[in-house]
Amino acid sequence: MDLKEKAIQLHKEWNGKLNTVSKSPVKSREDLSIAYTPGVAEPCKIIAEHPSEAYTYTMKANTVAVVSDGSAVLGLGNIGPLAAMPVMEGKCVLFKEFADVNAVPIVLNTQDPDEIIQTVANIAPTFGGINLEDISAPRCFEIEEKLKEMLDIPVFHDDQHGTAIVVLAGIINGLKVTGKKKEDCRVVVNGAGSAGVAITRLLLTYGFRHITMCDKAGMIGKNYPDLNWMQKRMTEVTNLEEQTGTLADALKGADIFVGVSAPNIVTAEMVSSMNQDAILFAMANPVPEIMPDIAKAAGAKVVGTGRSDFPNQVNNVVAFPGIFKGALEGHARQITEEMKLAAAEAIAGLVSEEELNEDFIMPEAFDPRVAQVVSEAVKSHIR
Amino acid sequence: MDLKEKAIQLHKEWNGKLNTVSKSPVKSREDLSIAYTPGVAEPCKIIAEHPSEAYTYTMKANTVAVVSDGSAVLGLGNIGPLAAMPVMEGKCVLFKEFADVNAVPIVLNTQDPDEIIQTVANIAPTFGGINLEDISAPRCFEIEEKLKEMLDIPVFHDDQHGTAIVVLAGIINGLKVTGKKKEDCRVVVNGAGSAGVAITRLLLTYGFRHITMCDKAGMIGKNYPDLNWMQKRMTEVTNLEEQTGTLADALKGADIFVGVSAPNIVTAEMVSSMNQDAILFAMANPVPEIMPDIAKAAGAKVVGTGRSDFPNQVNNVVAFPGIFKGALEGHARQITEEMKLAAAEAIAGLVSEEELNEDFIMPEAFDPRVAQVVSEAVKSHIR
Repeated sequence: MDLKEKAIQLHKEWNGKLNTVSKSPVKSREDLSIAYTPGVAEPCKIIAEHPSEAYTYTMKANTVAVVSDGSAVLGLGNIGPLAAMPVMEGKCVLFKEFADVNAVPIVLNTQDPDEIIQTVANIAPTFGGINLEDISAPRCFEIEEKLKEMLDIPVFHDDQHGTAIVVLAGIINGLKVTGKKKEDCRVVVNGAGSAGVAITRLLLTYGFRHITMCDKAGMIGKNYPDLNWMQKRMTEVTNLEEQTGTLADALKGADIFVGVSAPNIVTAEMVSSMNQDAILFAMANPVPEIMPDIAKAAGAKVVGTGRSDFPNQVNNVVAFPGIFKGALEGHARQITEEMKLAAAEAIAGLVSEEELNEDFIMPEAFDPRVAQVVSEAVKSHIR
Repeated sequence: MDLKEKAIQLHKEWNGKLNTVSKSPVKSREDLSIAYTPGVAEPCKIIAEHPSEAYTYTMKANTVAVVSDGSAVLGLGNIGPLAAMPVMEGKCVLFKEFADVNAVPIVLNTQDPDEIIQTVANIAPTFGGINLEDISAPRCFEIEEKLKEMLDIPVFHDDQHGTAIVVLAGIINGLKVTGKKKEDCRVVVNGAGSAGVAITRLLLTYGFRHITMCDKAGMIGKNYPDLNWMQKRMTEVTNLEEQTGTLADALKGADIFVGVSAPNIVTAEMVSSMNQDAILFAMANPVPEIMPDIAKAAGAKVVGTGRSDFPNQVNNVVAFPGIFKGALEGHARQITEEMKLAAAEAIAGLVSEEELNEDFIMPEAFDPRVAQVVSEAVKSHIR
């Protein structure tokens, strides 16, 4: 049986990948009178008086909502809420298995940003954090920004920030391997959707100075056609030399390529035109922007992809579970830029100096230390 | 340690009464590639093409949202969403423990009916059913009616219909014990909030003809002051003789009293003024409208309360878990009146002819047969 058939059969057997379970047994009248009425009134009264006690007496303390409108699901596109459920359940499974965080999928029967914002804000008291998932750009930017303003719990669009954090972790170690300095590096980010924008923003925050974003028509600048508001905003902090031209033009002399775009669009010639010891993250899935062996043969030093069958896999699962674990344990009200940088440093730091080499810049997804160190890093930056 | 202290301590230890757990282990790369990307795309594609397959491949099949705005929580009143969480978690525990139905609390940061309706409609694709809980009247009527129109999954306000079903079950057996006929009985329902209205409506559907609702100022009729729209609607089908007067006046010659009101407002004299072999359900909590021993001494034949330390406890837990279990298993789109009546008959039917007597008209809350027979009864009425 191949993977696809196996996935179908197992999903059928599971009939949903999550269960809820009770921590409080109800086997007797006394159990019932404690977990439910009349005993339950006591914690209610305490929370009514001191709302922060919800973190002591309710599952808000350790529960995240994984929210999607199904508008940009994996490689499947806008398949809507029902069809997005298996992905959201899968995400919840990862929260649980990797960081022991409770997670509940919430798929939405609306793709209107204002309605999404209102709906998530309305259900927010239930949860200790909101993980936005698979919401298309540029709607995702507005939705996340407004929710962050409105809510007193962390709101985190994983397609943006999870990806950005893991890419930054890889780049931090890539710099070590190549001896490059962030201030001097020329970076090209190809793909200007949610991940591309978030990666660019986090790299700027980390201290990169020269970043050019590209999209299908080449280098993005002030005169690029049909930019959305977020891409326009990005033109104020990227491509400061106001270059124009193709992706191939952008890559000439570049040190780092980050692709969140399409299969096979980077050629060996383009890689050869890059600066010495180039670092490439070719994360189109399942077929990367360039295959690692081709990139290496063309002179690249470090190549990462989204795939587990090549070295240096960029996998969000090393980030989001630990990030929420730390945020929940510390009752964080936001995931700040400092926390994201700290998470990336913590992930990168899990690869020891002895282990670090061009084919081992990322910790394994199943490394049991990952969620713990990420969560500690996040927690230590809660103000 | 008394019950209150115990409840506080245990709620603190639990730190939330529910966990989510994964049915799909993620211990290897292959596990990850089945439960998450790329394998998860397969069930997504199937659901995108055939939406009803969500019941095969996702937790929608067996998951209920327990939704509250915290506006009418137990005896605590309008304590808001955060403080309502322990009650909603408790309800979810009961769903799981009594019927193996997954349930997720959703507490809402709004008490505006239109916003509640929109919010619940927006998150509905996630769930197989919506259990509304502890929402104040008359808002609860509008919210439930509109959601029933909008959604293709069952919406059930348990404070209304769960209570009504269990009361009807008790009355069905009360009629057997007393030999009274529903067509001839004069019924007084005291309390015109969500439970009182729903009980009255279900009793009418069942075939009772003479029902008078009372509220604080006495018998409700067309000229009763300050009725809300639902209470006005009820005046068209109750108190058809257009009587006026106090609760005491209403009870003269009545066969059945149902109280969902306040402690100690029914006196021995009122009971004595009722018809022979009167049936009383005095469900004010924790202190009933009249204590059972007093009612019995005054001539009542059957007395039920909400309390577990007296005979004939009226406890919603014999209804809602099985009702949703049946509705979910049968992919019901609604909980119809037929299902409610069938559930009440099924609950009543669990007390055998040999067991049935004035002090044993209700099955025990912990009777393991209850959820099963209720669920079968509901399922057999899905059209």
